[in-house]
Amino acid sequence: MVYKGLIEKYRKNLPVSDKTPVISLHEGNTPLIPARNLTDKLGFNGEIYLKFEGMNPTGSFKDRGMTMAVSKAVEDGSKAVICASTGNTSASAAAYAARAGIKCIVLIPEGKIALGKLSQAVMHGAEVLEIDGNFDEALNLVKELSSKYSLTLVNSINPFRIEGQKTAAYEICDSLETAPDYQFMPVGNAGNITAYWKGYKEYNRAKPEKYALPKMMGFQAAGSAPIVEGHPIANPETIATAIRIGNPASWKTAEEARDESDGVIDKVRDEEILEAYRIVAAMEGVFCEPASASSIAGLIKYIKLGYFKNANPVKIVCILTGHGLKDPDTAVANAVKSKKVKADTKDIINTIGF
Amino acid sequence: MVYKGLIEKYRKNLPVSDKTPVISLHEGNTPLIPARNLTDKLGFNGEIYLKFEGMNPTGSFKDRGMTMAVSKAVEDGSKAVICASTGNTSASAAAYAARAGIKCIVLIPEGKIALGKLSQAVMHGAEVLEIDGNFDEALNLVKELSSKYSLTLVNSINPFRIEGQKTAAYEICDSLETAPDYQFMPVGNAGNITAYWKGYKEYNRAKPEKYALPKMMGFQAAGSAPIVEGHPIANPETIATAIRIGNPASWKTAEEARDESDGVIDKVRDEEILEAYRIVAAMEGVFCEPASASSIAGLIKYIKLGYFKNANPVKIVCILTGHGLKDPDTAVANAVKSKKVKADTKDIINTIGF
Repeated sequence: MVYKGLIEKYRKNLPVSDKTPVISLHEGNTPLIPARNLTDKLGFNGEIYLKFEGMNPTGSFKDRGMTMAVSKAVEDGSKAVICASTGNTSASAAAYAARAGIKCIVLIPEGKIALGKLSQAVMHGAEVLEIDGNFDEALNLVKELSSKYSLTLVNSINPFRIEGQKTAAYEICDSLETAPDYQFMPVGNAGNITAYWKGYKEYNRAKPEKYALPKMMGFQAAGSAPIVEGHPIANPETIATAIRIGNPASWKTAEEARDESDGVIDKVRDEEILEAYRIVAAMEGVFCEPASASSIAGLIKYIKLGYFKNANPVKIVCILTGHGLKDPDTAVANAVKSKKVKADTKDIINTIGF
Repeated sequence: MVYKGLIEKYRKNLPVSDKTPVISLHEGNTPLIPARNLTDKLGFNGEIYLKFEGMNPTGSFKDRGMTMAVSKAVEDGSKAVICASTGNTSASAAAYAARAGIKCIVLIPEGKIALGKLSQAVMHGAEVLEIDGNFDEALNLVKELSSKYSLTLVNSINPFRIEGQKTAAYEICDSLETAPDYQFMPVGNAGNITAYWKGYKEYNRAKPEKYALPKMMGFQAAGSAPIVEGHPIANPETIATAIRIGNPASWKTAEEARDESDGVIDKVRDEEILEAYRIVAAMEGVFCEPASASSIAGLIKYIKLGYFKNANPVKIVCILTGHGLKDPDTAVANAVKSKKVKADTKDIINTIGF
């Protein structure tokens, strides 16, 4: 059967009916890529896979939740959706709203979202408002607005978002024909770790003999690590703009995922994130956005800590939540530059040292 | 069966053997998205589909050819690949070479490639050389260099590129369970129209009763339309940088595709390209790069010309060759801007006019 998006694929596990108008860009069905070069480099005795969510239509995992949230909004007769965003949510909301033919209003922190993401929201015709505040303030504003006006909130506190996002756990289990032993992932607003855990639990409940439960290993950026520190961060800072969030909406459910799975939520420094970001692009050919690389940075940290010392060979999945093209400026600033040469073979051979 | 890239999927139609090391990022398997809003807007009596090749791992169709070219280069013992590029080829070559653990050297026209594409090549660790010349001069240089040194050329004159790219035609036929009647697509270096036509002819030869041959409708940018004008263009100019090519490598085979299929190769102006680029993002939720939109611009032009007047309801596929995130600057420059507001619900409601 030809793939037509995650609602069609996992319809029986989702709160949709024949009456739900399916607004889809054929999101989901993203690849689970073996990372053999990275495994060798780390001298790791096990299997590492990259779930490359950057291959969703708008370039991030947000599309999984948005196909659900916008389809349900249209089913309910909504004419406009609203969200706060560090960029990826707004890109996705704008795209699905455009496809549905409804309005989209997005609030973003002024000057703090990556160029690619801003370009998406404006091209998809959203009304993009840059507020003089951070993500957490933007989220409070959209909550208030959606409670007073007929605007459907499509941040991850919209429960349909979590329902859509849980399908990524299904896909991992379907690909591996088992559950992974550990899942490493970024934690920002914490909706995604909540969603994956829900998905894994559902597969486990349906077939416990086939799908065990993985340990959920979440990573925040050190300058933006409220769950790790145990309190909201008033002025979160990190190069990983997609997880630059000081007061996560799904804080409690993220802690539940951690505790129920016997996992961890820890932090990684910006330098570790950038190093992981470069490694995965240069060694595996997978270009993710900086926030995504916090999963790889976390894995490297835990291998170095000897966390897997007594474990049998294990299957690890790292979630890469968004495409590197979302944030080209960070890439150009953090990679070896291009060189200028004359249009002459001798000059070129001298430059490349052949 | 879990999808593992186009070589595994279409192995029996490709020049690979059990000895070929498959270098894959799970490219291909891109969605064929129905464009119902666009169909309605154009008042068109037929079906329009978008083949969104921007959902390949590096964000363009080039990955289809590159998985083949780099796999075969590794099979042949090559330690380095080289290409000339307007950006997408270099991003793809760099990613697959990184995954294969071999060197990648790319020549790009100075200052004329989109930011996203440059960010990819540098992150994937390619040696990126900006030459003081255009794409056509860069292509001549890499041809000369690959003939003199042990560097494998991975531009589309490498025949394995065409073999990989032809699989997109297979996918369209597999999705529709028939062939389209018309295919609209951009034409730059003209390898892709060559590849699609090869793919359609192969499916037609295998099952003529099921797969007819579509008419191939190729579109160049008006300032860069050598095939339309009938002579090379010394200084090609267009906003659609991916098809800013004055002397296409696959000129002759593109003309064959046009003539054998009873199709056309025509041109569209930059304004028509930008208008189509905005329409498809705002009405269908699909964000492609400017060059890709020349397929939509071509379709709009031909509908207006009355080209389909006497045709029965037809199935049309438009190829969107690359993701809009490849070129965020063009998007931000050509869309309605974001607005700055205070972090205050009243200011927001006044701004959005609720």
